[in-house]
Amino acid sequence: MTGGLALAGREKLGDMGPDEFRDALGLVADWVARYRERVRDMPVLAQVKPGEMRSALPAHVPRAGDRVEQWLEDLDRIVMPAVTHWNHPGFMAYFGITGSAPGILGELVSAALNVNGMLWKTCPALCELEEVVLRWLAGALGLPESWFGMLTDTASTSTLVALTAAREMAGLDVREEGLAGHPPLVMYCSQEAHSSVEKAAIVLGIGRKGVRRIVVDEAYRMDPAELESAIVEDVASGRKPFAVVATVGTTSVTAVDPVGDVAQVCRKHGVWLHVDAAYAGSAAMAPEFRWALAGCELADSLVTNPHKWLFTQIDCSALYTSRPDAFRRALTLVPEYLKTEASGVTDLMDYSFQLGRRFRAIKLWFVLRYFGSDGIAARIREHVRLAGLFAAWVDEHPSLERLAPVPFSVVCFRVHPPGVDGEGELDQLNARVLDQVNRQGRVFLSHTKLRGKFVLRLAVGNLATAEADVEAALDEVCAAAGIAGRAR
Amino acid sequence: MTGGLALAGREKLGDMGPDEFRDALGLVADWVARYRERVRDMPVLAQVKPGEMRSALPAHVPRAGDRVEQWLEDLDRIVMPAVTHWNHPGFMAYFGITGSAPGILGELVSAALNVNGMLWKTCPALCELEEVVLRWLAGALGLPESWFGMLTDTASTSTLVALTAAREMAGLDVREEGLAGHPPLVMYCSQEAHSSVEKAAIVLGIGRKGVRRIVVDEAYRMDPAELESAIVEDVASGRKPFAVVATVGTTSVTAVDPVGDVAQVCRKHGVWLHVDAAYAGSAAMAPEFRWALAGCELADSLVTNPHKWLFTQIDCSALYTSRPDAFRRALTLVPEYLKTEASGVTDLMDYSFQLGRRFRAIKLWFVLRYFGSDGIAARIREHVRLAGLFAAWVDEHPSLERLAPVPFSVVCFRVHPPGVDGEGELDQLNARVLDQVNRQGRVFLSHTKLRGKFVLRLAVGNLATAEADVEAALDEVCAAAGIAGRAR
Repeated sequence: MTGGLALAGREKLGDMGPDEFRDALGLVADWVARYRERVRDMPVLAQVKPGEMRSALPAHVPRAGDRVEQWLEDLDRIVMPAVTHWNHPGFMAYFGITGSAPGILGELVSAALNVNGMLWKTCPALCELEEVVLRWLAGALGLPESWFGMLTDTASTSTLVALTAAREMAGLDVREEGLAGHPPLVMYCSQEAHSSVEKAAIVLGIGRKGVRRIVVDEAYRMDPAELESAIVEDVASGRKPFAVVATVGTTSVTAVDPVGDVAQVCRKHGVWLHVDAAYAGSAAMAPEFRWALAGCELADSLVTNPHKWLFTQIDCSALYTSRPDAFRRALTLVPEYLKTEASGVTDLMDYSFQLGRRFRAIKLWFVLRYFGSDGIAARIREHVRLAGLFAAWVDEHPSLERLAPVPFSVVCFRVHPPGVDGEGELDQLNARVLDQVNRQGRVFLSHTKLRGKFVLRLAVGNLATAEADVEAALDEVCAAAGIAGRAR
Repeated sequence: MTGGLALAGREKLGDMGPDEFRDALGLVADWVARYRERVRDMPVLAQVKPGEMRSALPAHVPRAGDRVEQWLEDLDRIVMPAVTHWNHPGFMAYFGITGSAPGILGELVSAALNVNGMLWKTCPALCELEEVVLRWLAGALGLPESWFGMLTDTASTSTLVALTAAREMAGLDVREEGLAGHPPLVMYCSQEAHSSVEKAAIVLGIGRKGVRRIVVDEAYRMDPAELESAIVEDVASGRKPFAVVATVGTTSVTAVDPVGDVAQVCRKHGVWLHVDAAYAGSAAMAPEFRWALAGCELADSLVTNPHKWLFTQIDCSALYTSRPDAFRRALTLVPEYLKTEASGVTDLMDYSFQLGRRFRAIKLWFVLRYFGSDGIAARIREHVRLAGLFAAWVDEHPSLERLAPVPFSVVCFRVHPPGVDGEGELDQLNARVLDQVNRQGRVFLSHTKLRGKFVLRLAVGNLATAEADVEAALDEVCAAAGIAGRAR
């Protein structure tokens, strides 16, 4: 056995001791609680110049260590001014990465356990909790509970993995043979689909020319007849259609593609259907928004991101499939050092290109348990109500114009004073308004382009966002544009 | 403004209130501290049956929420028995995902900030701290500080992204055109390279047949002459070599490919060199192990995982490149809604297929600051010392046999009693010994195959692991094999 001297040496070489850890964790926990209490008083968009924070930090690792008090001081003094606060109630840009208190608690437990769930054996709890929680989520969203589910980091990864499976099912044995020597593969999505779809095509070796963007209708939804024509045309010209990505809640305007009709086209032509419901999938927690996922039960795979609108810390993307065997067929590879004797278990590494896998299910478990499905539905409903209010204010205002339907919690609008009708002038005006609003630090909005027009975009998704914050957004826009505020 | 009623309604619909959060965080923090204090007394390898944990959980999301006390009770009662404890000092399987107390604190801060650093603007602090900390790490490892660095989730992702850039530089405009119609691309790695290399080839559309496994020497290192012959042969037969993956610290035996020689071959033939230093890169924190990264300054890209042997929580993989433009060229795509006015900044989404990006740099910053580079070097050195001790005990023991050199902290060995020489018999004996050792719960070892032989594998990497734990591993093996223990 080791003696006293060796033990002292070991402690010196090991991790923080128990008391030191308890003290440090107490300090960091207090910092975190204070941060949440004061975030509303900070500017939502970081107001620093590029390189400002970087230049305030030393150029090299310190040789000797320092202590948590100093890290927290540097956090406050150097790092925080350079943080854009996604937790701020005025954060209404992009989609909101809407974390929550239970999500933080879940991440803390996950960080402490620090397991890698590549195999069932390397942490049965990770594999089985992921399975259970994803079944809970499927049930709560009205998706088939029989689907296989797994958590990945981002929708980008989920879509890439799903399309890898889809490509394998094209019957060309791409896994073994690669794509060279085969006819060009083609995949389809609407003009409004997310950039991650095209990035997946790049990575997969399909190339951007292998992505056909199908036109959308007046409400920015994919046209299934155009989809079918494109498939027929491609087959006739010797190309091989292999996948369609339909979107439930497009990034710009949260449009919902007609998934049921798209699915019929896919089945008829033997093409894999992947659904990107990263944002709007969560809406189906409220029964009145179940319509958004109608037809998705016919999909081969679907992604929805609890880190987008289900109050779960980034990163947490739920990838479902009705065809797990296709994922395995595309991606399983078991080197000797990962072979196990366990049978009847799911080794999640067989379904992805990523071997390492952290314990993401805990935070989702905590979030679902804290709010309950009714509580989440009520919060989703409230966000939609707030967006609806804002949309109504825009509609009433003589100098504001709404540019798309508002099915969920995102409003696309612009400043459009009567008499100003040059599109170039309006684009410039709105870009200036956006910049000015975001410099104030009270709210943070983003933008998009719709049919060539520069459009402001307000997205509600943060649990802290209340009516006063949405009102503030309107006030800020009116002030920046020099137009009258809303009559109250 | 909202009145009292609306405010009450908002609170009901929002997140935990400040006091409730402070109380809940205190409970979870205490749970985490207790977990770390008692993990050494738990079985390291979960001893549950498949499905046992799953069946103890409800089938559906609760409609109403419950409280943190209940989650923690379920954690202890249902989840913990199904956890394989990577934090246990007896965890010596695979490589160790070696977290630390400062790593936990960093994850807690990161979870609280909950930002998405897809663009500089969406969190300047994330982008700039990632840049600073990766430069710190490069400097501390003796890698060029001028390299561009980014953090990804896993080495699988880092290698996939690097090979996407490599493929683009093959000059075929794969990004736009895809791989169909081009000559087959070929990449190279040793017979001992990690499965993630082959998985990347699958995803990229190269196919497993596009991966040539180069033979290794007696110490399991890639043979550069064989590599060059293979490249010449492939070019002659109309295939197009585009990348070589060299390994610094192979998974089975931690062999180090002769990177400098491999780099010369790559330069001569215009082929991208990616180095997988996921495990052994960290060793270079100690100057006496800098040799392991010799020649890596000639690489086009390199991955090393702080979550493997740099005491950082999973997930944290550092991807470096001397050619960031190649990554951008392969992977940048900026849709309108992500365009910003900022200039002179790095938007990390331009260098990866993943859009979402959590704040991983904080934990690495905390880890490097807590231990300091000297402190980390001392701990790495201690782990190598412990592995060396174990190797010496194996070498001395008449019924144990070492099967590979021990350059770092991994020992490959087997039970080999005098007179037992049938390889089949030895394989069976060692498989039985491994199973029996792992059932005891005191240590957890893994295995591999070397030249057809079933080999036990002991990896030291946990800050809690001390000499007594390595001694216990030897005792467990001897007991399970029915051979005498080490003379003391």
